[in-house]
Amino acid sequence: MREDLQLLYELVSDDLAAGDPAAAAHRCAKMEPSDVADLFRSMESDDKIAIVRHLDAPTAAAILSEVDDRSLPELFELLRDEEIVDLLDTLPSDDAADIVGQLEDDHQDRVVGMLEQVDQQDAAELTELLRYPEDTAGGVMAKEYVSIREDQQVGAALPELRAMPDSELADLHFAFVVLADGTLVGRIPLLKMLLSDPTCPARDIMEEEPVAVNVLEDQERVAHLISDYNLMSVPVVDAAGKLVGRVTVDDAIDVLTEEATEDVARLAGSSAEEVGETSILRISRARLPWLLLGLFGQILAAVVLSRYEDSLRTWEVLVFFIPMVMATGGNTGIQTSTIVIRLLVTHEFDTRRAGRHLMRELGVNSLIGVLLGGVMVAVLAFWKKDLRVGVVIGVAITSVVLISATVGSMVPLILHRFRIDPTIATGPFITTVNDILGIAVYMALAHWLMTVL
Amino acid sequence: MREDLQLLYELVSDDLAAGDPAAAAHRCAKMEPSDVADLFRSMESDDKIAIVRHLDAPTAAAILSEVDDRSLPELFELLRDEEIVDLLDTLPSDDAADIVGQLEDDHQDRVVGMLEQVDQQDAAELTELLRYPEDTAGGVMAKEYVSIREDQQVGAALPELRAMPDSELADLHFAFVVLADGTLVGRIPLLKMLLSDPTCPARDIMEEEPVAVNVLEDQERVAHLISDYNLMSVPVVDAAGKLVGRVTVDDAIDVLTEEATEDVARLAGSSAEEVGETSILRISRARLPWLLLGLFGQILAAVVLSRYEDSLRTWEVLVFFIPMVMATGGNTGIQTSTIVIRLLVTHEFDTRRAGRHLMRELGVNSLIGVLLGGVMVAVLAFWKKDLRVGVVIGVAITSVVLISATVGSMVPLILHRFRIDPTIATGPFITTVNDILGIAVYMALAHWLMTVL
Repeated sequence: MREDLQLLYELVSDDLAAGDPAAAAHRCAKMEPSDVADLFRSMESDDKIAIVRHLDAPTAAAILSEVDDRSLPELFELLRDEEIVDLLDTLPSDDAADIVGQLEDDHQDRVVGMLEQVDQQDAAELTELLRYPEDTAGGVMAKEYVSIREDQQVGAALPELRAMPDSELADLHFAFVVLADGTLVGRIPLLKMLLSDPTCPARDIMEEEPVAVNVLEDQERVAHLISDYNLMSVPVVDAAGKLVGRVTVDDAIDVLTEEATEDVARLAGSSAEEVGETSILRISRARLPWLLLGLFGQILAAVVLSRYEDSLRTWEVLVFFIPMVMATGGNTGIQTSTIVIRLLVTHEFDTRRAGRHLMRELGVNSLIGVLLGGVMVAVLAFWKKDLRVGVVIGVAITSVVLISATVGSMVPLILHRFRIDPTIATGPFITTVNDILGIAVYMALAHWLMTVL
Repeated sequence: MREDLQLLYELVSDDLAAGDPAAAAHRCAKMEPSDVADLFRSMESDDKIAIVRHLDAPTAAAILSEVDDRSLPELFELLRDEEIVDLLDTLPSDDAADIVGQLEDDHQDRVVGMLEQVDQQDAAELTELLRYPEDTAGGVMAKEYVSIREDQQVGAALPELRAMPDSELADLHFAFVVLADGTLVGRIPLLKMLLSDPTCPARDIMEEEPVAVNVLEDQERVAHLISDYNLMSVPVVDAAGKLVGRVTVDDAIDVLTEEATEDVARLAGSSAEEVGETSILRISRARLPWLLLGLFGQILAAVVLSRYEDSLRTWEVLVFFIPMVMATGGNTGIQTSTIVIRLLVTHEFDTRRAGRHLMRELGVNSLIGVLLGGVMVAVLAFWKKDLRVGVVIGVAITSVVLISATVGSMVPLILHRFRIDPTIATGPFITTVNDILGIAVYMALAHWLMTVL
């Protein structure tokens, strides 16, 4: 939360505490909608509803479209159906669809039915948008776009533009050019269109074959396309190439942020669903699979150690460095895997250079391994006055760094090669594999070196 | 790399292999600049230069502004100064400043001097932009904006707009309204301006007090502002409130992506500088501090274990579960800390609810701890036919989960409270603390339980 807003937040709280939601609403109306949405996070539902009811529909709608999806349903349960319809009528179609999509099925039908009586076109658009899966271009697109037939004069679009409120104008960038049957064939920057001779046919000034996405395209691919090509908005077409909507850059930012959260949560061995989740059971369910995997992996490590029971009894000092061997392997595995995964996720990784990347990791980790191993030889020579133990631990650390680096950099690349999302297999997975390998190598090496040295 | 571009890439490579850079350049000119930049990643410098020399300056400039900053200097070393000046002359000012900022100081002076002879205004703008630190609003802003005095008629801006090429028009959204001394006082959506009566004074249709940022504001705060408020572009002002530039949403996306990479790299115990870095020495230097911290932390763990030498000799089975105790604590610490850090970084965390968050984590981890502990009691009852060892390991796992969860969720919050970036202290740091605490608690508990049971 930004500190510069703290004061405003306190004033709103004071109004509410004084039983004056109208004053609180008045303050909220002057703030940016996303700041009010921030404020809503730490408010009771009753207070939020009281504020929403004291705002005009467009302001309330703008605020609610910034509130995160998880807390919307409880709010909408408290609103009357007519109030919901009023809000939907003023919202952009994509935000309206997001909100209605959160309601129970029968509640959805009731609300869409009522909206039909007020605004048939809005209701039809909403019904269409609700049909597309949430994580596709269709699920994030809006129906508010300007289109013009290729044989029309560009001046034909002027009345439509003039009728739009400022807030909608600020979100428009292109007029999409279509054939009589709705097939997308071009685009014209709206500024260029307004600066051109109004009698000029659209086809004469349009850019042909604009970048477009299919309505069922994955939302992440759409977001990366918008980000890579620096687009302000991208037209969405159906299987026949007909224009059905558009996705704007601010939707792309939301998708990219959501995706980064998902990736970070997965690296930690959880899932993005838990972010913002309040149910202890559901959070535990998201984390448990990875923890159990780790637990069973470590049973294997226990089995490996029990195989070397005699060596551990003879050379007790080996026990003390089990944590070090494991931790160093674990840290190395996470460093190498996280960097590869980030490069893969942001499409900055050129798979044709995978060999070169692996060689570089081996170089880096040979250097690091030898350095860390050397440090341990020196430390143990001083601490235990025992060069033999020092050499054993030093060699073990060097080997474990190299093995963990290889596992850490190869596993994500192999998964990527087989088109499996590499984020799924990291953090806990690679750490567990490295722990078991690390313990096995440590014990085998130590047993052998203690015998021959 | 997107597969649909694979074929194009192969054709370009074939052209180059056949010694026909003109044909390769011809193909590149028809591709999206960011796709060509992708292709450049796996090309030799000589080939890149050959292609750039066969392209017209605007196309070459558009491609080079998409190439990542790290590989630009080597390219520019190979170009003649006149070629560089040609490119700079067609680039938007922010991209030009990014490129020139990568050159050696004397090379910078030489190029800016030559540009001055071609285009004095461009050179002055470039010199101004080079003055601002790279990671501030000034460092990412562009000088290409439309401004109008509040007492001017909106029609006065038309000739300037008409003179602009399509590519620049596509990036414009607002006319910024200023006083005679340059102080920012309002903004008008350009579409609205073009739809209005040209004789209307700017002040009559402007939105007053637009959101603006100071030229020295941190680029991450600017990016979050653009993303939170769904802005297409934000005006940049100096300390006196005078308009000096604007930052657009595509710059914000780049900053947010860069920042997410930095956060992920830090969680892994490295730094974003290593992403794309090719020097083995520099990569090692980014990773070594955390690995050394881990190593010295584990020396402490070794000291703790050596204190319990007698217990470990008496109850050998305790040794086998050292990896499990460490790994479970490590995984729990990463899960809890990563989620808090992500919420803090994306400004979704309401610090007034910190207490509630901590209670929830304790709830989740009590459940998880008891469950994992129970699993181990059952596993050991079967495997070792020894309920006592099962209880010892089970209780240890439960305790370690609770302790690690507390450390994992509190440390980032405490750092945040003291305004230290919480990403700095995670991954390796929290894991190391948890390893030492975990080993200490495990040994103390085990020693006590084995004695009393």
